[in-house]
Amino acid sequence: MVAEHTVKAYDEELDRMDNAILEMGGIVEQQLADSILALVRRDDELASRVITEDRRVDALETEIDQLAVRILALRQPVAVDLRVITASLKVASDLERMGDYAANVAKRSIAIQEIDPIRLTHAISRMAGIAQGMIKDVLDSFRDRDVERAMAVWRRDEDVDESYNSLFRELLTYMMEDPRRITPCAHLLFIAKNIERIGDHATNIAEIVSYVVTGTPVEEERPKGDVTSFHQADDDTEAAAS
Amino acid sequence: MVAEHTVKAYDEELDRMDNAILEMGGIVEQQLADSILALVRRDDELASRVITEDRRVDALETEIDQLAVRILALRQPVAVDLRVITASLKVASDLERMGDYAANVAKRSIAIQEIDPIRLTHAISRMAGIAQGMIKDVLDSFRDRDVERAMAVWRRDEDVDESYNSLFRELLTYMMEDPRRITPCAHLLFIAKNIERIGDHATNIAEIVSYVVTGTPVEEERPKGDVTSFHQADDDTEAAAS
Repeated sequence: MVAEHTVKAYDEELDRMDNAILEMGGIVEQQLADSILALVRRDDELASRVITEDRRVDALETEIDQLAVRILALRQPVAVDLRVITASLKVASDLERMGDYAANVAKRSIAIQEIDPIRLTHAISRMAGIAQGMIKDVLDSFRDRDVERAMAVWRRDEDVDESYNSLFRELLTYMMEDPRRITPCAHLLFIAKNIERIGDHATNIAEIVSYVVTGTPVEEERPKGDVTSFHQADDDTEAAAS
Repeated sequence: MVAEHTVKAYDEELDRMDNAILEMGGIVEQQLADSILALVRRDDELASRVITEDRRVDALETEIDQLAVRILALRQPVAVDLRVITASLKVASDLERMGDYAANVAKRSIAIQEIDPIRLTHAISRMAGIAQGMIKDVLDSFRDRDVERAMAVWRRDEDVDESYNSLFRELLTYMMEDPRRITPCAHLLFIAKNIERIGDHATNIAEIVSYVVTGTPVEEERPKGDVTSFHQADDDTEAAAS
C-alpha cells in the first residue's frame, strides 16, 4: 500500500509538471495574441496587461525548476520520465524567453504612436498567427508526446521566416520613402524579429519533444528561412527604387 | 575499493560536465570577439569562421544534455550536485543562444558592405567588450561557484543596456539623415540588439550560479536598462532635428 501510495504521489508530481508547462505555454500563446491585438487596435491598456503577465510566466518557470529538482531528488526517475523532467527544464526556459519577446512586442506597440501603412500590421498579424499556431501545436505535441505533430511544427517555422523576410524588405522600403517613418518602422522591424524568434523557440521545443519520445536528438538540419542577415544594401536600394 | 572507484568515476563525470560548459562558454566568448573584429575590419573570412563555429557550440549542448541525463540516471545526485546538473542544462541552453546571436552578428557583418560612420562601430565594439567581459566573468563564477562575482556580472548588464540605448538613438538619427544608410544601419541595429541579448543571457547564467550555490532563486528585480522599446517617434524626430 505504501508503495502504491508513493507511485500515485509520483504520478501526481509528473502531472503537475506537465500542467505547469501547459499553463505557462497557454499564457505565452495569449500574450502573443494580445500583444498583436494591442498593436493593431492601438490598445495601450491591453499592451500593459501583456507586460504584467510576464511575471506569472517567470513565476511558473521558477516553480517548474524547483519541481524538477524535487522530483529528481526524491523519485530518482529513469528512462522516459527522466527525459521528461530534463526536457521540462529546457522547455520552461524557451517559454520564458517567448514570454519576454511577446512582452517586448507589447512595449513597442505602446511606443509606436501611429502606424500609417496599415498593410504592415496586417502582415505582422498574419506572421504572428502562424507563430501562435506553432505554440499551440507544439504544446499539444508535448502533452501527447506526439513526435509527428512536433516535427510538423518544426517544419512550419519556414513560413514564419518567409513572412519575416518579406516584412524586413517592405519595412526598409517604407523607411527609405519617408524618414518620418524610420522610428515606428524600426520598432516594427524588432516586433517582426521578436515573432520570428518566438517561432525559433517553438521549433526548439519541437526538437525537445522529439528527444523525449525517441531518446535521440533531431539529426536533420533545421530549415533556416531567415535570410535577411545576408541582405545587402544594394539589393534594398534597388527594391526601394522599383 | 569498488565504492571508491565509483566515487572517482562520478567526480570525473561532474568535472567533464563543468569542463564542457566552460569549453562551450570559451567558444561563445571567442565567437563574439571575432564577430566584432570581422565587422570592424570588414573581414568576411573571419565572419564565416564564426558562423561555422556554431556547430561546435550546438554539439557541446547536445553532449551536456546527454551527460546530464546519464549522471542523473546512474548517480542519482542530491543537494548541490543535483542543482549543478539541472543548472548545467539551463546554462547550456543560454550559451547555445548566445552563440546563435554571435553568429548572427557575423552574418550581418558580411551583409554590411560598407559602414561610413566609423564612430558607430567603435560604440558597438565598446558595447561588445562589456558583454565579452560578462561572459568571461560569469563562466569564472560558474567554475568557482562564486555568487559575489556572479552578482557583479548581473549588475553590469545595465552598462550594456545603456550603451544599447544610446546606439539605438544614434542609429535612427543616421538613418534619418541619409536614406542610403538605412539598410546598413538596420543591420547595425540588430547587431547592437544581439549584443544586448547576449548580456541578458549572461545575467541569466549569473542567476543560475547564485541558485546553484544558495539553493534559492534571485529575488531582486533585474535592472532593466533597455528602454528603447518605449522610445517614441516624436523624441527621435527631435533628436534628428537637433
